[in-house]
Amino acid sequence: MIQGHLYIEPPTLEMHPVAQYPPPLSEDHLLWLSIQIQDWLLNHGSLIKDISTQTVHSVKSYPIGVTLFPTLFPRQRFQEALELQSIYNELYCAVAEDEQWILNAIEDLLPIDPLAAALWKIHQEVKQLGGYVQPISAGIFRSDYMLQDESAEADDELSSMPQGSLKQVEFNTFACAGASHANKIVDMHRHLARTGVYNANNPSEDTTDSSHLVIPSNLPRNRNIESLAAGLASAHAAYGPPQSKVASKTAVLFVIQDQLTNFNVADERPIEYALWDQDPPVPTYRLNFGDEILEDTSLTATGELLFHPPWLNAAAPIEISVVYMRAGYEAHEYDEVGVRARLRLERSRAIKCPSILAHIATFKKVQYALTRPGALERFLTPEKAAAVRATFVPMYPMDSESCAGQEARKLATDPLLAEDYVLKPSLEGGGHNVYGDAIPEFLASQSPSKWDAYILMKRIPSPFAANMLMSSVGINSGGVISELGVFGSCLWRRGADGRSCEVLENSTAGWSFKTKYQYTEEMSVVKGYGCFDTPLLA
Amino acid sequence: MIQGHLYIEPPTLEMHPVAQYPPPLSEDHLLWLSIQIQDWLLNHGSLIKDISTQTVHSVKSYPIGVTLFPTLFPRQRFQEALELQSIYNELYCAVAEDEQWILNAIEDLLPIDPLAAALWKIHQEVKQLGGYVQPISAGIFRSDYMLQDESAEADDELSSMPQGSLKQVEFNTFACAGASHANKIVDMHRHLARTGVYNANNPSEDTTDSSHLVIPSNLPRNRNIESLAAGLASAHAAYGPPQSKVASKTAVLFVIQDQLTNFNVADERPIEYALWDQDPPVPTYRLNFGDEILEDTSLTATGELLFHPPWLNAAAPIEISVVYMRAGYEAHEYDEVGVRARLRLERSRAIKCPSILAHIATFKKVQYALTRPGALERFLTPEKAAAVRATFVPMYPMDSESCAGQEARKLATDPLLAEDYVLKPSLEGGGHNVYGDAIPEFLASQSPSKWDAYILMKRIPSPFAANMLMSSVGINSGGVISELGVFGSCLWRRGADGRSCEVLENSTAGWSFKTKYQYTEEMSVVKGYGCFDTPLLA
Repeated sequence: MIQGHLYIEPPTLEMHPVAQYPPPLSEDHLLWLSIQIQDWLLNHGSLIKDISTQTVHSVKSYPIGVTLFPTLFPRQRFQEALELQSIYNELYCAVAEDEQWILNAIEDLLPIDPLAAALWKIHQEVKQLGGYVQPISAGIFRSDYMLQDESAEADDELSSMPQGSLKQVEFNTFACAGASHANKIVDMHRHLARTGVYNANNPSEDTTDSSHLVIPSNLPRNRNIESLAAGLASAHAAYGPPQSKVASKTAVLFVIQDQLTNFNVADERPIEYALWDQDPPVPTYRLNFGDEILEDTSLTATGELLFHPPWLNAAAPIEISVVYMRAGYEAHEYDEVGVRARLRLERSRAIKCPSILAHIATFKKVQYALTRPGALERFLTPEKAAAVRATFVPMYPMDSESCAGQEARKLATDPLLAEDYVLKPSLEGGGHNVYGDAIPEFLASQSPSKWDAYILMKRIPSPFAANMLMSSVGINSGGVISELGVFGSCLWRRGADGRSCEVLENSTAGWSFKTKYQYTEEMSVVKGYGCFDTPLLA
Repeated sequence: MIQGHLYIEPPTLEMHPVAQYPPPLSEDHLLWLSIQIQDWLLNHGSLIKDISTQTVHSVKSYPIGVTLFPTLFPRQRFQEALELQSIYNELYCAVAEDEQWILNAIEDLLPIDPLAAALWKIHQEVKQLGGYVQPISAGIFRSDYMLQDESAEADDELSSMPQGSLKQVEFNTFACAGASHANKIVDMHRHLARTGVYNANNPSEDTTDSSHLVIPSNLPRNRNIESLAAGLASAHAAYGPPQSKVASKTAVLFVIQDQLTNFNVADERPIEYALWDQDPPVPTYRLNFGDEILEDTSLTATGELLFHPPWLNAAAPIEISVVYMRAGYEAHEYDEVGVRARLRLERSRAIKCPSILAHIATFKKVQYALTRPGALERFLTPEKAAAVRATFVPMYPMDSESCAGQEARKLATDPLLAEDYVLKPSLEGGGHNVYGDAIPEFLASQSPSKWDAYILMKRIPSPFAANMLMSSVGINSGGVISELGVFGSCLWRRGADGRSCEVLENSTAGWSFKTKYQYTEEMSVVKGYGCFDTPLLA
């Protein structure tokens, strides 16, 4: 059955001998499962574009990385994470309307971080040019958690369910990715579960203890695509009918990275299609961040953002109701064109998802500032603040003046102490983090005046779990670490006082669950290290 | 916006100057449409596996060929084709139970066609080994039509709707492909239509004459995946509960070509997933034709076909209710292993989709035999026979004895006369046909004793239509020819007399619409010549 041009890389069974899950697989079983999964990914568009093959008429793509089995995760922690989301949504809506508090949190960044500087400058310019004309903002957020192992005797409990407490890795307010992939991969694991392939050694599903069985009822459903589309549709409805007399209709605009080099269309497009599938349909178009915004949109005197589809001859423009940002999160995007593009969007009457202040709230400096005494209580009731604080791990600024900064510099420059920490820049995503004993050397290579751009965060030691991962880099098995991201969708209105916040909608929109080998630092899905997964709740 | 590694092959606008549809596109418009389409195909799994890249953990795939625009097609002809299907279903159910009539139709083939010989031999062996134990058979058929231009002054009417009459190209009873791709590509054209991209020069959709506008109401819906799954689910239900005491449940079995070299999983898998999505789910598994059937199934003494999933340890086998054949249509598949595999399936109690006699009914010799005087009336009422006969074009056998055969040999060996004909072997699909003036030379290269394996068929001159096609081979525009395939799904029971037929279910399950350039002979989707399409009904 295996052809000559195939190769099998036999799984290195590094699993702890007493780990019972996932069960060891025969080579036949592994191959069968691998082909089932590849076919499923291909058929459901769970793919990454190989942009080096892009021509005007065709492009190749390959399956996104996934776990072969769902990974064990405690049911109670999963529920807790979902329940926390509405509080986190409320918190960040409020933060995003508190300009002064945000400025305090990030002002040290402005001289040294070009992205922070660009965004803050655009914010100032909007204010100088007459201010924001749209009081409503939308947010699609994602709060990422890992399990922190709380048991001292972890090694003795390998055969039982990994417990632990939820600790927040980061909070993302901008261009949150992975929702569509996560949705589809959960559907995949649920499909495989119903075929019976996961319970090869427990063929009867009628056993009294079904808590460790991979059956659909132990795999939570995921409706990310539907929920995020519903959130954007709701913002679209809140915008109301076209204000401009020349516009034919209103539409949502996805602002994306270059359409021709954007490898992750499989994560963005499903939300766009789901908007068209609303009843009535929510028209949705997309433009590249930068040049296409400048070429194909215009602002009316009263701030309506008009989209002039380049393929329509002499047609009425379309008025943009909601600008959904899936680009503009890297400093290099803010060249002169990028700045002008973002300024046009921010000055418009369109509802931004998110506003520029909500964007800035994604910076690690804001995450750190929320850990400071009294910060949460500024925005939340004491009960809610306590619930949020329970998910925090110790975080430090890296400045040279504050006590916390001085302590952080001591921790980060000592190879032994640094072991338990991770150094994070304010950038979104995990690609720029520096881990453990690599921190002192990294800092030594940077001018100390730039250290303030980072925060130092305690690493989260996870309980043991095992799985097999399959991606473009190979297929293998071993100890793994999972990250649970909970999506929130919300809509809020800036108060007349210019700093209060009325939350109009606040929902937990779904979740993503990603897994990597325990010895891999990065959760990069693109590089094939991070794999989409489904929690097996027990 | 166009990157260095891209290349644009500008469309050769070969369209007739008065052709108004599709409208000429600017380069921007073309690129925009191309990217919309590629993203849609990637996101919906409308892809072909590039099996040369298959490893155990990954495989690349590329978009299937599609038309950029829907192609004009007369609404009345489309309806006629759908309405004819129930008559064609009835006809072929009856043919498939008339062993003697089938033998008469194909007996000249048996000494010279290895596939026909292999199938007939298996049929004889089943009868010698006690006969068929399952009186019910299922069929998923597809009747393919082209429009025949009936107007003498066709050249003067290029700007109007292409009319014509429906003529049958072939009738397929076995492993009919394309249903899932067709379903998804219709969804794609309907999606693009609602974005407004097709009516660049007619931005207002409120015009009084909307008959030529590409708007969803002019694009028929397609529910192939749902309908074919419903047909198989219905056969599964007709089978009833497991007969074997050791079996845990019943399931549908897809018999497919080698899982690792099967590039067209995107056409098969959606039907499998749709079966699992039935309420209650219809368990569905797949095995390669040949070795996997022999290794992983067994027959009980009373004929139940048991599937022993190779990945289940010591589990109860699964009893197969329906065998859905998507392999076994090429002579080389009937080596010793293939023959034993097919024999096991045919001897089993499972409902075959289709039976071996229904499989043989797909041969062109049967299509020809139905054109002979009185043949249709043997199976249908005169009214129904007349409706079917109206779709026939002249067909001839190629034997050396009959008058028809002698006439055919005259036509086929004369380069001038042969121009209007196509020579077809009994094999399924169009890849082995010989067209027009290539026929005499081809026949000269074959021993005249083998000519009888072919039938000669009048070519169908189609009215002019234009479109742009995009596939892995490029993007271009020009005159095109479309083929409409109508899917039928049916279930029938062999009468106690051993030759009558009781039709239990008979439905028109959907359709496919494929288009190629008018100067390309083959409608091969795999080679990138044939493109999936949607009729723009006018």
